[in-house]
Amino acid sequence: MTKTGIGFIGLGARGLSLLETVVLPMKAADVVAVCDPYGDRAQKGADAVKAAGGNAVLETSYEKVIQNPAVDAVIIASAWESHVDIALHAMRANKAVAMEVGGAYGIEDCWKLVDTYEQTLTPFMFLENCCFGRREMMVLNMVEQGLFGEIVHCAGGYHHDLRREITFGRENRHYRLRNYTHRNAENYPTHELGPIAKILNINHGNRMLSLTSTASKAAGLHTYLQEHKPGDENLKNTVFMQGDVVTTVIKCAHGETITLTLDTTLPRFYSRGFTVRGTKGMYEEATDSVFLDGPQDGAYDFTWLKNQCQNAETYAAQYDHPVWKKYLADGVQGTHDGMDWLEFKIFFDCLQNKKPMPVDVYDAAAWMAVTALSEQSIALGSMPVAFPDFTRGKWVL
Amino acid sequence: MTKTGIGFIGLGARGLSLLETVVLPMKAADVVAVCDPYGDRAQKGADAVKAAGGNAVLETSYEKVIQNPAVDAVIIASAWESHVDIALHAMRANKAVAMEVGGAYGIEDCWKLVDTYEQTLTPFMFLENCCFGRREMMVLNMVEQGLFGEIVHCAGGYHHDLRREITFGRENRHYRLRNYTHRNAENYPTHELGPIAKILNINHGNRMLSLTSTASKAAGLHTYLQEHKPGDENLKNTVFMQGDVVTTVIKCAHGETITLTLDTTLPRFYSRGFTVRGTKGMYEEATDSVFLDGPQDGAYDFTWLKNQCQNAETYAAQYDHPVWKKYLADGVQGTHDGMDWLEFKIFFDCLQNKKPMPVDVYDAAAWMAVTALSEQSIALGSMPVAFPDFTRGKWVL
Repeated sequence: MTKTGIGFIGLGARGLSLLETVVLPMKAADVVAVCDPYGDRAQKGADAVKAAGGNAVLETSYEKVIQNPAVDAVIIASAWESHVDIALHAMRANKAVAMEVGGAYGIEDCWKLVDTYEQTLTPFMFLENCCFGRREMMVLNMVEQGLFGEIVHCAGGYHHDLRREITFGRENRHYRLRNYTHRNAENYPTHELGPIAKILNINHGNRMLSLTSTASKAAGLHTYLQEHKPGDENLKNTVFMQGDVVTTVIKCAHGETITLTLDTTLPRFYSRGFTVRGTKGMYEEATDSVFLDGPQDGAYDFTWLKNQCQNAETYAAQYDHPVWKKYLADGVQGTHDGMDWLEFKIFFDCLQNKKPMPVDVYDAAAWMAVTALSEQSIALGSMPVAFPDFTRGKWVL
Repeated sequence: MTKTGIGFIGLGARGLSLLETVVLPMKAADVVAVCDPYGDRAQKGADAVKAAGGNAVLETSYEKVIQNPAVDAVIIASAWESHVDIALHAMRANKAVAMEVGGAYGIEDCWKLVDTYEQTLTPFMFLENCCFGRREMMVLNMVEQGLFGEIVHCAGGYHHDLRREITFGRENRHYRLRNYTHRNAENYPTHELGPIAKILNINHGNRMLSLTSTASKAAGLHTYLQEHKPGDENLKNTVFMQGDVVTTVIKCAHGETITLTLDTTLPRFYSRGFTVRGTKGMYEEATDSVFLDGPQDGAYDFTWLKNQCQNAETYAAQYDHPVWKKYLADGVQGTHDGMDWLEFKIFFDCLQNKKPMPVDVYDAAAWMAVTALSEQSIALGSMPVAFPDFTRGKWVL
């Protein structure tokens, strides 16, 4: 069998890292074309392919990558704003799509993804790598085994101090700078929402009905610039529209709530704040702890946490997801604690064996919609706004 | 000087504990009258006073306690629903008030507290003991010293598994049962909100403007009953209105946000989730950690937390609040890690030396209002609702 021909679109930090540390060493496909609006980045991508023993055409636009007859599938790792246009273009040309994450700029974009998929039936996967995280999959496994009872509430956040990345966005040609300058939204919800949506069966017997979003003031980047880039004349007078902390609360059809926190412009340690609460137990990433219902009474008592903080690893032998048990035995590889490798392994397997993608276009539409809806809610003073049903009723089937 | 004469109103679990472990051993005042709707509870209170060498009249109603000429001040530790009526009655009789915490049943109750205080100028303190917690005061001290920079976001929760207390409410004659049966609100916001409000200078140059509240389904108590009280015919068919997890997001006049979580009917360990985020650093109770801005970059990295989890105690020698440094030197006493003792020490000091109360009627009104407003927001599908300004403009002075 000829290997799948990959067109790799977007070779900034994320794209090049995926190419070099995951897609090329995995050898499940041939990267046959690359492109990036910046020639030097595209060249680096082509060089990386060559260094791995392959040969990729350096195309001058994503359209040309998609037109290239050797390309069977595209990996989209370009700037947020370009994802949907490229994915639509590729699907219309029947080139399979693996699209990196980001939020939607409008609900219409989500509908276009769904409509175009339904018209073309081109394989589409949304690259939400955190759905393949070890703890996320362990907790999913525990939920599916009923350990936590009925799930009632979940929470997560993108707690990642990106002040340097954002404020050096011009030097690094990074899209976050312009987004933080102009928008105010839960701009990156999917890392935490993806695993939660899988746990809550979103689009499969459940759906997100409505949300509210509330943004704090924007003070973090201004303070950071004063200290770290006092001479930057361009940014000195920039007023960032993006609030430092955006809190979004989602209500689901079966009465579950989901709290999401965007938290990227204040000093802190990294976390995704993954939390799952059920009638029989809970998992909390902040303390990496599993709490199961038992004879203990919920008294005013700080000792449980002092003793059990970071106890989740003790559950791993029994509850690591089967996919991860195998992966650990085979040897974990690649970036982000192995999530990226596992994600692409599964993508190529589904693509080449014509299986349904584990994170599909309906997932993408629903999760990305959070950004557009949160922008609306913030603009309307935290008014609740309603989710469209991108499955057009098929979620109840 | 004659000691202050105290009328102790409400001798359930909380009242009796405060009486026996704080008010009586402190000997700053004489408990001269007690009452409770249940005669046996009132008798226990009178017995406790006698055992401590005092003598308290057992009155048959709170009105009679207030009328008692030996009573200078009342401590109100009765059921939630009765707090405001008793406090108004006492203030009108010029009997000083120390009122236990709870949420408001309506905004009008908050206004009545404020109006009656302004008409009578009777000393009034709201017994929010968590304002006197050691960590809460250490973090307040760090904030005041500028260590966290400009404060942008705070969070807290009442994470306390009360399933047993609630479902055995009939046997224990506890007010929570009827509240969880009929209401759906952030019913107990002040333990986490009080310390946050002090940090954000609420009522003193800042105020809470609006909130949204979203309630999850109510599943925790039903599951608990099936397992722990399968034969309870009264509760078997009870449909609890109170959602298991209620998430409330507050927006403040200076752009800060506050996230509050009510979380009392699912299995978990105790926590108040106290979190303070500024442009230069943070404190997080979940991990009991202090993170200060520094040369470290906010990379994808879980090692900081693995190494620094529970590091806050290392800051205590330098940053414990002066009040707590003295208290630790003198010897911490009483319940709830010493908060209750410190709170009453300060209450009696302010009362006897005619100083302003540290948690006053405007604090009480603003904080208690969260409950009434959250009930409105939930009923209206998470609509934002506006806070009244209980200071009538004096917050900008």
